[in-house]
Amino acid sequence: MLERLTLIAPGLLGASVARAARERALARHIAIWARRPEVRLQIAAQPWCDDAPAALADAVAGANLVIIAAPVTHIVPLAKEIAPHLSPGAIVADVGSVKGEICRFGHAALRGRAHFIGSHPMAGSEKTGWEYSRADLFEKRTCFVTPLPDTDVAALETVVRFWRDLGSEAVTVAPDRHDEIVAHISHLPQVIASSLCAFLNHKDHAWRNYAGGGLRDTTRIAASDPLLWRTILEQNRDEVLCALREFQDELQSFQAALANRDFPEITARLERGQAYRRDFRP
Amino acid sequence: MLERLTLIAPGLLGASVARAARERALARHIAIWARRPEVRLQIAAQPWCDDAPAALADAVAGANLVIIAAPVTHIVPLAKEIAPHLSPGAIVADVGSVKGEICRFGHAALRGRAHFIGSHPMAGSEKTGWEYSRADLFEKRTCFVTPLPDTDVAALETVVRFWRDLGSEAVTVAPDRHDEIVAHISHLPQVIASSLCAFLNHKDHAWRNYAGGGLRDTTRIAASDPLLWRTILEQNRDEVLCALREFQDELQSFQAALANRDFPEITARLERGQAYRRDFRP
Repeated sequence: MLERLTLIAPGLLGASVARAARERALARHIAIWARRPEVRLQIAAQPWCDDAPAALADAVAGANLVIIAAPVTHIVPLAKEIAPHLSPGAIVADVGSVKGEICRFGHAALRGRAHFIGSHPMAGSEKTGWEYSRADLFEKRTCFVTPLPDTDVAALETVVRFWRDLGSEAVTVAPDRHDEIVAHISHLPQVIASSLCAFLNHKDHAWRNYAGGGLRDTTRIAASDPLLWRTILEQNRDEVLCALREFQDELQSFQAALANRDFPEITARLERGQAYRRDFRP
Repeated sequence: MLERLTLIAPGLLGASVARAARERALARHIAIWARRPEVRLQIAAQPWCDDAPAALADAVAGANLVIIAAPVTHIVPLAKEIAPHLSPGAIVADVGSVKGEICRFGHAALRGRAHFIGSHPMAGSEKTGWEYSRADLFEKRTCFVTPLPDTDVAALETVVRFWRDLGSEAVTVAPDRHDEIVAHISHLPQVIASSLCAFLNHKDHAWRNYAGGGLRDTTRIAASDPLLWRTILEQNRDEVLCALREFQDELQSFQAALANRDFPEITARLERGQAYRRDFRP
């Protein structure tokens, strides 16, 4: 059990970490820091928060583990801000969707005083805000933990164990490999869903009322926060561009087969897609 | 209440019609015809089937309303096969996903003896088979009803009323307009989901185990039956090609904006998608 866990910037993910940590008794004391006073007041009243100080320095003082749950652009600035106030040997992790730059700059920000361990739980929702948080959000979900070559092994193990104890399945990969993976399995699907909705926005709006479950599911994540995704795409631009170009080739080949009435080829492509989807774990 | 309702080729949709019709007491007698004897035996034992004759002629004899729930390629041949055995003035409807050709040839097949009324409930599942049928499958779902200019008004009204009584929201449109609409809101999403999975199939298969809810939902329909979709895409080829080309332009513009680091443009596109998706009915 951790003596003191601190969550910084609790949205859906950060508050879910606090809820799950309390429910599973992973930390004796949970401190939470939110920038806005009205959020601090609300959070302080929750059973999964022991302390919600106004000063960031007070929130991280004495913490064994600090989780920065802020949007990707805020993670490194917050790491710099808390660095002087951390106990020596403290561990700082994040939940950002992009890892390469954040891990390198986060590590540098702590100047050897504390350990920065990048992490990224593959859980969330198109909804944002701590009000939507759930103690079971991480259960059976992958959580990437992304060490650098010189990351402290004991600190890495602590973070892996923490995510496992929250119910998730920790997967350790290098930050750049992580960014390649999520470009394909998260960022590309987001671009596709958003683009499909942006495209249909040009058509008769009554059509969306006719849609069955197919369009509904295919586009659910298009409702996600555009500013959040802008920053993710900005930080992972090269990998997303690469995945997007390859997907466009795939779609172009499908179109060519349809234009040529090459239905055996169409069927083969549909079958390849079905085979991949069928082997998703339940 | 209908005196006699006949369902031909009960899969997920056809059996769901029978269940819902029984539950809502829409027909005094429900006859069901299935090609395979083992399915006939199973169906005959269900409380929503009064009679499952082996001969198609016996199944449709005396029926007021016949619903052909077969795959799109089988609808017109079945209409031709039952035509000589229908009562004069009987109504034949289908549940096919494409309507232009089926309505024209279905109408011709009945040779003025009975009325062919195209229909297409926007309900279903990536699962197929009568075992997955549900009495509430059509509730609050759109059902397109697609009359031709010379369709009998009373027969059209009977079919519209039938789908309404099953719980769906009937929308009357011309067959060709229907095909344009579903190319965009159903067939294009299918091609995208299948192509995304076919693309990811070339990559490390372990990645799919890491996916969060986003990829899972975006690709759910990729698990659908490839042969069923091959025939749908074959029948609606021109409209799907048109929608697919326009969607590729949309995706290409997104890629260009990302390549050019034009993040205001990226944000505007994400916002356009979000606005469209937010106004989906609950």
